[in-house]
Amino acid sequence: MEFKSKIKTIEWEGTYSKMVDQTVVPYEYKFVNITTGDDMFDAIRNMIVRGAPAIGIAGAHGVILFAQELAQKGLSREDFVKQLIEKAEYMKTSRPTAVNLMWACEKQIEVIKNSKSDINGIIEELKVNGVKLENEDIEINKKIGDYGAEVVPKGATILTHCNAGALATVGYGTALGVVRSAYAKDNTIQVFADETRPRQQGARITTFELAMDGIPVTLITDGMCSYFMKKGMIDMVVVGADRIAANGDTANKIGTYTVAIAAKYHNIPFYIAAPLSTIDISIKSGDEIPIEERSREEVTHINGKPICALEGVNVINPGFDVTPHDLIAGIITEKGILRPDYNKSISEAFKNI
Amino acid sequence: MEFKSKIKTIEWEGTYSKMVDQTVVPYEYKFVNITTGDDMFDAIRNMIVRGAPAIGIAGAHGVILFAQELAQKGLSREDFVKQLIEKAEYMKTSRPTAVNLMWACEKQIEVIKNSKSDINGIIEELKVNGVKLENEDIEINKKIGDYGAEVVPKGATILTHCNAGALATVGYGTALGVVRSAYAKDNTIQVFADETRPRQQGARITTFELAMDGIPVTLITDGMCSYFMKKGMIDMVVVGADRIAANGDTANKIGTYTVAIAAKYHNIPFYIAAPLSTIDISIKSGDEIPIEERSREEVTHINGKPICALEGVNVINPGFDVTPHDLIAGIITEKGILRPDYNKSISEAFKNI
Repeated sequence: MEFKSKIKTIEWEGTYSKMVDQTVVPYEYKFVNITTGDDMFDAIRNMIVRGAPAIGIAGAHGVILFAQELAQKGLSREDFVKQLIEKAEYMKTSRPTAVNLMWACEKQIEVIKNSKSDINGIIEELKVNGVKLENEDIEINKKIGDYGAEVVPKGATILTHCNAGALATVGYGTALGVVRSAYAKDNTIQVFADETRPRQQGARITTFELAMDGIPVTLITDGMCSYFMKKGMIDMVVVGADRIAANGDTANKIGTYTVAIAAKYHNIPFYIAAPLSTIDISIKSGDEIPIEERSREEVTHINGKPICALEGVNVINPGFDVTPHDLIAGIITEKGILRPDYNKSISEAFKNI
Repeated sequence: MEFKSKIKTIEWEGTYSKMVDQTVVPYEYKFVNITTGDDMFDAIRNMIVRGAPAIGIAGAHGVILFAQELAQKGLSREDFVKQLIEKAEYMKTSRPTAVNLMWACEKQIEVIKNSKSDINGIIEELKVNGVKLENEDIEINKKIGDYGAEVVPKGATILTHCNAGALATVGYGTALGVVRSAYAKDNTIQVFADETRPRQQGARITTFELAMDGIPVTLITDGMCSYFMKKGMIDMVVVGADRIAANGDTANKIGTYTVAIAAKYHNIPFYIAAPLSTIDISIKSGDEIPIEERSREEVTHINGKPICALEGVNVINPGFDVTPHDLIAGIITEKGILRPDYNKSISEAFKNI
């Protein structure tokens, strides 16, 4: 039985990109149309669209938008291609940690470089490829979900951190794809969602999208995970990923590493769910993953209001942390669940692409 | 060199109790006068006063307030004593986890039971004892601070969770008493303060009181602790306690246990700082400590505003967790630092009271 999710996060609409505005979820569930490359850059940076796979697709759409704009300039084909590749490289820099963004922009750069068509033909090929990446994302997530569902115990309570759901992808989700596939087989499973400070993607987005799809979810604060683990109330942890190194070290939303340590301490299996496009085989370990530092206001304010009035207080706000491979029970991908030794299992998985 | 803190959290003022209203810190730093026993009960329950040692003193003041009210009723001495002890027992129930509340109310009950005076005389004796407990609290905290300062490395960064500061006590603080004493000797130390969701005592109160006393502090979210530990940026952890069992298991603000696990994983010493009055030798282990469940609005709202608009979302909000004794490097008390085996060291400390 296949689980039908109601959510489509991002979609190419002929000449523009339509996406759920995730800065206002769950207060509003509204769509915005992004019509220029620069607006897409800002949409990614300001997290109107977020989640590693979703910002990959957003980056691919951004390249099409830049192509449409450059096509208005009367450039030679050669200059068009040169400037468009520069724009695609620029689009990669909108956020530093999630590698899917670089991967998807690179896929579009390949289309540009390999094209034999004229400018309009290149744009058409970029659109075709953009839609292909969208459709593949959903298919990949369903495969991840189905592989992951095999390791979900009957009646399990699954803890997740941040949002690796339909709203972090085109649809269905990675970590929450595992939840959806498991729920389709066994509707006694449930989810505990970490709030995920500072930006509260768990409280705002994970609870929202699971409720929308009718899957039971309980909201807790980040520090509570160990309390419920000790009480025997958590059976497994599944989270997404922003970048996975060749040895399995995994960057994900800040706080993930703390959850992984707590899971290890309580002998609870901790899984990553991510497409192979999140794995960056060019880097050996998590030490090489750049960690985005975000603004102090994300910590000191919520919804634009100060929650800690001391103007001058010092804040450090790393957006991600790296969970070392030895805390990870398995990496659930569209090619199956990769197990330690990850250097081996990851390089095997990449051989068969 | 002694550190002079600017903060006096709670004080008996002749006929009423004057306290900092901690629900509005750091937006406002204002005092409220509590003039009836029932208002004190509510002030404790609603966390106008919070922190285990401070609510102990608040409870002792509450017994005086009830005594003043009962004295207006024209009761016989016998009925006065009987009803006052009932009120003192009732005052103990204003919050369930922090044992200092029960301890301080019990100290007042002893005064009542041992008194040879008439009604007015009993009230005077309760006032004298209330002020004695206040003064002792500060003296005890300074001793805790001085013992604790001995284990703070030069230039250390100390992580703390919640607020076990001057504002959790009459003044000076337990965990932050250690910080103050250490800072008096070495002004290159600094503090990292966990935000401490859901009520953000770290973000609101710890950063405020340390800034007020000029001690450098950096605010982080709860999930970030492991990130900074792995980077080698945290040298030790010191937190307060709400109740310590005879074996050293320690109840403290929710999230503490997660920090303790992370500290263990990174081989960073994790200390408790608390007066002996926080140790409940009547219970063998942390399993017997009652954990307060608080309202869902503490998780879903901040400053009265929803931060997660789904009205129906399920929430569980335990106010405390228990850190098992084997994660604790030492319990810093006014009688010195207790070390494992805690059953032995705690019972030794109680022999010398």
